[in-house]
Amino acid sequence: MAKRYDEVMSLSLRKGFIWPSVDIYGGFAGFYDYGHLGAAMKRKWENLWLKYFLGLSRRYHLIDTTNILPFKSLKASGHVDHFTDMLVSCSGCGTSHRGDHLVQNATGKSAESLSTDEIDAEIQNLGLKCPKCGGALQSSTEFNMMIPLSIGPTGADKAYLRPETAQGAFLNFKREFESLRRKMPFGLAIIGRAFRNEISPRQGTYRMREFIQAELQIFFNPNTFDDEVDFKSVEDEILRISFEDKKDDGHVEDIRAGDLIDRLPKFYVYHMVKIQQFYLDLLNMPRERFRFAELGEKERAFYNKLHFDIEIKLDSLNGWGEINGIHYRTDHDLSGHQAGSNEKMTVTVDGERILPHVLELSFGVDRNIWAFLDVCYEKGERSVLRLPRNISPITIGIFPLVSKGGLPELAIEVFESLNDDFECFYDEAGSIGKRYARMDEIGTPFCLTVDYDSLENKDITIRERDSTKQKRVPISELSQTFKDLLKTGAGF
Amino acid sequence: MAKRYDEVMSLSLRKGFIWPSVDIYGGFAGFYDYGHLGAAMKRKWENLWLKYFLGLSRRYHLIDTTNILPFKSLKASGHVDHFTDMLVSCSGCGTSHRGDHLVQNATGKSAESLSTDEIDAEIQNLGLKCPKCGGALQSSTEFNMMIPLSIGPTGADKAYLRPETAQGAFLNFKREFESLRRKMPFGLAIIGRAFRNEISPRQGTYRMREFIQAELQIFFNPNTFDDEVDFKSVEDEILRISFEDKKDDGHVEDIRAGDLIDRLPKFYVYHMVKIQQFYLDLLNMPRERFRFAELGEKERAFYNKLHFDIEIKLDSLNGWGEINGIHYRTDHDLSGHQAGSNEKMTVTVDGERILPHVLELSFGVDRNIWAFLDVCYEKGERSVLRLPRNISPITIGIFPLVSKGGLPELAIEVFESLNDDFECFYDEAGSIGKRYARMDEIGTPFCLTVDYDSLENKDITIRERDSTKQKRVPISELSQTFKDLLKTGAGF
Repeated sequence: MAKRYDEVMSLSLRKGFIWPSVDIYGGFAGFYDYGHLGAAMKRKWENLWLKYFLGLSRRYHLIDTTNILPFKSLKASGHVDHFTDMLVSCSGCGTSHRGDHLVQNATGKSAESLSTDEIDAEIQNLGLKCPKCGGALQSSTEFNMMIPLSIGPTGADKAYLRPETAQGAFLNFKREFESLRRKMPFGLAIIGRAFRNEISPRQGTYRMREFIQAELQIFFNPNTFDDEVDFKSVEDEILRISFEDKKDDGHVEDIRAGDLIDRLPKFYVYHMVKIQQFYLDLLNMPRERFRFAELGEKERAFYNKLHFDIEIKLDSLNGWGEINGIHYRTDHDLSGHQAGSNEKMTVTVDGERILPHVLELSFGVDRNIWAFLDVCYEKGERSVLRLPRNISPITIGIFPLVSKGGLPELAIEVFESLNDDFECFYDEAGSIGKRYARMDEIGTPFCLTVDYDSLENKDITIRERDSTKQKRVPISELSQTFKDLLKTGAGF
Repeated sequence: MAKRYDEVMSLSLRKGFIWPSVDIYGGFAGFYDYGHLGAAMKRKWENLWLKYFLGLSRRYHLIDTTNILPFKSLKASGHVDHFTDMLVSCSGCGTSHRGDHLVQNATGKSAESLSTDEIDAEIQNLGLKCPKCGGALQSSTEFNMMIPLSIGPTGADKAYLRPETAQGAFLNFKREFESLRRKMPFGLAIIGRAFRNEISPRQGTYRMREFIQAELQIFFNPNTFDDEVDFKSVEDEILRISFEDKKDDGHVEDIRAGDLIDRLPKFYVYHMVKIQQFYLDLLNMPRERFRFAELGEKERAFYNKLHFDIEIKLDSLNGWGEINGIHYRTDHDLSGHQAGSNEKMTVTVDGERILPHVLELSFGVDRNIWAFLDVCYEKGERSVLRLPRNISPITIGIFPLVSKGGLPELAIEVFESLNDDFECFYDEAGSIGKRYARMDEIGTPFCLTVDYDSLENKDITIRERDSTKQKRVPISELSQTFKDLLKTGAGF
């Protein structure tokens, strides 16, 4: 793990963003909890995501579905047969390894697309041994990553924890289509947990066994969707892309959206632009840290026809890390459930009977939170977490200069007047410098200090995190001032 | 099931509130999904809950923790040994029944506190047979309600799905106490899913195998908490209470909070008042439908010293239904984890070394959603869902009177200007009367209609759901008008 990983994790542990679950029992590999700052930041990220992506159409809606799904629904979706990783066990110590990771670590090249036979051949050729004990490695096998369970007092009902939130949208498609008045395209979003029995969880919060997804499934008529998106409004945007053949060496191209439509459908490129805008414009992600990375036919999941990952360059991972994906799933899922359930999934749109296709925008919430912690944390004499204002867990720190002379009372009054509309934190412990430093380190963009002049003049000092500039503002104008600052993202 | 249950469920299915999961595969007993209206209503309820209950103290915070917990943490909490229901199987058809439910159905009295021997004796005395096939019933056994699973490629790590969100707060107590600067009382809230392998799920959304809880664990010093709550501010509130010995006959007493403190701790009564205010004042629950119902020693869970349920009188259940509980868990959980993990859970507060006690406010989110649908749905010639404005899935319906002459354009303009701050729904299909009726039936408190006068005078008609009264308001004043209407809850 990179040194940077430890730096960010140390901040995270100390302040209460993310930490290993059940750590009083020595932890639980692959599971992490959110402390109070992490939970607040995550909730803001989710609200922003919902507002932005449901805002793309008046026909996109949030739903919420169960984490447990019965066997037959996941058999029909293909997950029972195909949702596997390559398991290689050590014949000495019994440790389980991911076969493709063993090969990748030895060669430096992705091995995700290799078959069991190919992995076995590589292990033989490279003379690989168990990284833990040096023992001989057994042949690789396909290992299903879903976590099975049994429901009911006799355990007769076989089920799984869902490996992705997406299936909930496909299973609810028919009912929603009917209650939403039968119009296409329409979208169903789910934010929730998913579960994968990772063979060997590593990279901390980057490969967890229980994780949170925010996914939007867009159901559409494949014959008309290209014309239904407002492509003209995005055609001049410059996208940052790494195509399949060039991504391993880190090469990123700047390509105009309009120039991509000879190799990708318009509707697909349109949504790439919307996602890039979400990161670069709304969340201030530095442009050079963002890219779309294409997955080739062998790397893609069995249900995807087109697949680009959204990646962020992270020092804690020593390179590009996948945080989201944009997946053209075609009619794979609906036709699977149609066959598995014997319920017709075709619908009539404008007099035409069609089986809708699906474009999936899939976001890893935990990975997003981690990525922003990593990208925004500046450690030094003055340590600052430069989070975008719209996902900072606390928006305004409020302090009395000293805890006497009526200053705390006025500061609490200010707190009460702002706390309904903004996340505020009141603090009177320690010097003002220490209080600023504590707020800087958890990403709070603004601090307010009540001093003796405040009592007389009814005004107050705002201090901005990134510039450390200060301004004097009448208390009566505070609420509007912060509304404007958050809306426009203006400097100070 | 009551006729009313079918009425409410029919609305719910048709419109997209709650419906059985995986219904295209014939359903999955004990599992329900939220459609787009249900998800929107639930999110609003959760936000309101967070705002209100975290608002009780600046030291109450939201965290988020994993659904899967390892065996040893649930062994230490007592759930592995004690979290059981009474299972009685039929020797004929093999159907599983809950022993206490069989006895209760026959006698009309709660049998939850009976032991296996007592249940067996009752079954014998009453001559009970299998309700399904009439076969002989086997002896009752204790059945653990947690859903077990195995983690890791070899399945070596035994775990469970959490049976309550609460454990996440206890497991994170120590870390949070430290990152929150070591002050008491402090609170940790979790909103998330919990899982119970119900022997025989029934009552629809009232007894689910996967359900959503909103829980606040308040950690406090038992020697000082009574003085730390502002009891004076609540002592004259009149609480609606049914004590243990009188609740089965439906008797509810009106008791002044101040008169309860000879039998209950002040801190406990204080939080009863806060919960009652949440329902009666903030959510307009009719007073006669609300009560606290005491649980006796044998009815309480093994970890509770004091336990009142919060119940709502529901026609769909033919009587009082538990939706929440207020539980004085003492130091049961922290001392359990201290013994199980060998980590000290004691902390130093004001120079004193203590093991904190816990007051748990536990809310069943699905049950709340169902309760409001039931209580608020008025079926008739004009069907209206009289939801409180603050949890209606849609706040404003926006219509052009006719879909021509520039009216749709202005209506969409109004939609765009309001949709950032309020949940809006645009509709131009069908007569105005039909559009009002559709909004009434899903609980939308306000509708706006753009007519030809709107084009000239820049004003618009607001129609209020409950009174059906209409008002003309300048378009420029709409946003402020709705902010005021939502804040004050004023009539029309």
